[in-house]
Amino acid sequence: MADSKSISPTDITDCFFHNLRAQVRPGDRLTVALSGGVDSVVLLHLLTTFSESMQLEVSAVHVEHGISTYSGEWSAFCQSLCDSLAIPLSIHRLKIRRRPQESLEAIAREARYQIFKHIQADYVMLAQHQDDQVETLILQLLRGAGVKGLSAMPTVRLLEPGKTIRLFRPLLNIPRSEILNYARLHGLSWVTDESNLDTSYDRNFLRHQILPLLEQRSPAYRKTLFRSTQHLGEAAHLLDELAEIDAENTLVTNRLSLQGLRELQPARARNLLRYLLAQRLIRLPNSTKLEEILRQLNNIQPDNHFRFIVDTLEIRCHRGLIEFLPADSLPEPIAPVVWQGEQHLVIESLQGVLKFTRQNNMGIDPARLSGQIVTIRSRSGGERFQPDCKRPRRSLKKILQEAALAPWVRNTLPLLFCEDQLVWVAGIGIDCNFQISEGSTGLVVAWHPSQINQVSTH
Amino acid sequence: MADSKSISPTDITDCFFHNLRAQVRPGDRLTVALSGGVDSVVLLHLLTTFSESMQLEVSAVHVEHGISTYSGEWSAFCQSLCDSLAIPLSIHRLKIRRRPQESLEAIAREARYQIFKHIQADYVMLAQHQDDQVETLILQLLRGAGVKGLSAMPTVRLLEPGKTIRLFRPLLNIPRSEILNYARLHGLSWVTDESNLDTSYDRNFLRHQILPLLEQRSPAYRKTLFRSTQHLGEAAHLLDELAEIDAENTLVTNRLSLQGLRELQPARARNLLRYLLAQRLIRLPNSTKLEEILRQLNNIQPDNHFRFIVDTLEIRCHRGLIEFLPADSLPEPIAPVVWQGEQHLVIESLQGVLKFTRQNNMGIDPARLSGQIVTIRSRSGGERFQPDCKRPRRSLKKILQEAALAPWVRNTLPLLFCEDQLVWVAGIGIDCNFQISEGSTGLVVAWHPSQINQVSTH
Repeated sequence: MADSKSISPTDITDCFFHNLRAQVRPGDRLTVALSGGVDSVVLLHLLTTFSESMQLEVSAVHVEHGISTYSGEWSAFCQSLCDSLAIPLSIHRLKIRRRPQESLEAIAREARYQIFKHIQADYVMLAQHQDDQVETLILQLLRGAGVKGLSAMPTVRLLEPGKTIRLFRPLLNIPRSEILNYARLHGLSWVTDESNLDTSYDRNFLRHQILPLLEQRSPAYRKTLFRSTQHLGEAAHLLDELAEIDAENTLVTNRLSLQGLRELQPARARNLLRYLLAQRLIRLPNSTKLEEILRQLNNIQPDNHFRFIVDTLEIRCHRGLIEFLPADSLPEPIAPVVWQGEQHLVIESLQGVLKFTRQNNMGIDPARLSGQIVTIRSRSGGERFQPDCKRPRRSLKKILQEAALAPWVRNTLPLLFCEDQLVWVAGIGIDCNFQISEGSTGLVVAWHPSQINQVSTH
Repeated sequence: MADSKSISPTDITDCFFHNLRAQVRPGDRLTVALSGGVDSVVLLHLLTTFSESMQLEVSAVHVEHGISTYSGEWSAFCQSLCDSLAIPLSIHRLKIRRRPQESLEAIAREARYQIFKHIQADYVMLAQHQDDQVETLILQLLRGAGVKGLSAMPTVRLLEPGKTIRLFRPLLNIPRSEILNYARLHGLSWVTDESNLDTSYDRNFLRHQILPLLEQRSPAYRKTLFRSTQHLGEAAHLLDELAEIDAENTLVTNRLSLQGLRELQPARARNLLRYLLAQRLIRLPNSTKLEEILRQLNNIQPDNHFRFIVDTLEIRCHRGLIEFLPADSLPEPIAPVVWQGEQHLVIESLQGVLKFTRQNNMGIDPARLSGQIVTIRSRSGGERFQPDCKRPRRSLKKILQEAALAPWVRNTLPLLFCEDQLVWVAGIGIDCNFQISEGSTGLVVAWHPSQINQVSTH
């Protein structure tokens, strides 16, 4: 890995080549995130130096944030640069709206990453350098961050869990001054924007007020702070390994055992929780929220079902097992859908499909439905059901509880009604009154649950 | 623990009481490290407020570093303060000599800690506060420290491994401004020394140049940076727990398995090594030295014995098991010592004792030694020995190897010679030519090895 050892970047080309070779393989497709500023222009230039010998497929992407009035000029510059280097360039235009309590820098970054996700490449190449890294460390300190935040930007990381496209920062151990030297030495042109997005106001304050003063007394501050980020990156990785060890002992069929979590020391529990959430969420809750989640999990009764929302996160506990879900992906109860004989009926709100087939000696008696209004909806409470003709009719609630279905599954299970009568319940069966008699052809309903439900079993 | 939660120190007395109560028990003996500056004066004052109700035995210690010309005035101030509060005070005078490449602050701290070690108390109370903690964090960043260094000062820690006396910093989450407010509110007097030892030049630069500028833009920087140190402290603790898990799998009779170490991922191996060294050494080697130790351990042959020194550390590997020892505690080969019939013979260089007793039917035949010069010394090579009369005389080297003694033990084993003839080898036996015949009283020699050898089996 390029960040595993600190390299003295006396020669930026050598250092870049070393970083590149440690990561990419012949045939890899590399897309440079090209702003038009000196850093990404140098990155593109360095990459084209090696692309042929290393058999790399290089392209570029430019994101127009639409904030600066000069956006168009930046795009034009990038286009002409890429044309001159015969590098394919795609340009994306964004409309960014400021959200409360979030920096414009964070919003713009998120928007860029959304675009990166759709790029057909192995690596999105980012031009952040050692000065950026050191500034990020200090900004994270000013937020009171923990090890992961303080380790700042990783040299390489997956853009999204489960996908193969990676972010790669091959200039991360190279100081800004070396990049500028390179650009001048090679007579490169670039666009200068003193108020550019990547240098938010806080960052500019550090860059222009604090760090030059610090440098007077500690000329090596970049190197030492950068070394600290590397130690912190390694520590963050080790903390994940500790969490994996703890996860092995506390996960049951991919859900977290409440008892197992409670038996851990608080610091270990926090570490495990942080790790599990990082696998499921793009943005990690801060330590206050993490503490609140732990507090709630320590107070609930393990034999009850429990469901609570912290920020964008829904936490569900059922029979002593905990699941975490992004709150905005939760299925709503189904608005009634009328079935008019379709073979496939999509239930939009569940992102699932009901499939209807005709089979001998099983299913619903079609005659019983004939001429009636057949609807699919969620339960609304008070339904009674008799799937087994030899047992009495009982409350659907009890039947679902016996089937060990979690309450949030119960509430969003599709039910088939004939007028007001409950006919069929997904995963449970057909009411005695509607079952086909032997020797006849019945209507078999099958529920193909949503992606969301699949997510919920993770 | 006082550092487990950040407390809003709106009321310094409440906050202090909370910190104190979380740590000490009735009857505990607390010794305040009293410099005479405002921080330790406030600490002493706060402590006397609670000492009676909490049944604490409070005393103070003042260390005169002898650097400032005003040292005597500081001592006099402390004496008069303690007299007025009826607190017993002990004053220690130091002569500090600057060592190359070490800050005066570090040398003075080490000297103070040496004094603290001899205090009869449960806690040495230190007056460092939130501003000190935050400055320490930044100074550690300027050294490129890892998680442990960046976590700065712990609220509570053992002064020495294996001892019970602890350092306790109950003001660590309280800002300097609150301490000053308290001192003024209570009309306290203190000594002011702008060039005092605790504020070395680097620290002063931060305090007077950098931090006021940072505060203009980030007024909450103390709180956030302090929060980061707490996260880092927790992370350092978790990394130790990971090391303990790895130690369980790689330690064999308290020595580190070379193969086990090599099977770990490099980051895990570094973490384990750091942990094991921290248990054995007061000052941890920096990451370059740690890397060098790992490199050497990765290159040696596991079936050979190996011994190398890194800085102040001696690393020994024998039969695939690794030991770590402070290099300056290594026993030298013994200079010859003449035995003149003593029952106890102290071997200074080994800090061990030879005991001579007379017993029936065992030991050395005293007649064979009579009138001869009997000496104790280390082996010098080439000795031959026959402890078993039924087996041939062989080289001592071979015999010691067969006994699975590590080479550094072999070289410092006491041998008893009669003129030039080898008579007795500690732990091996008596040469056939010198063994007593049945029915007689022999001279039995027993080696009571040094503390150093006991350390070497840790």
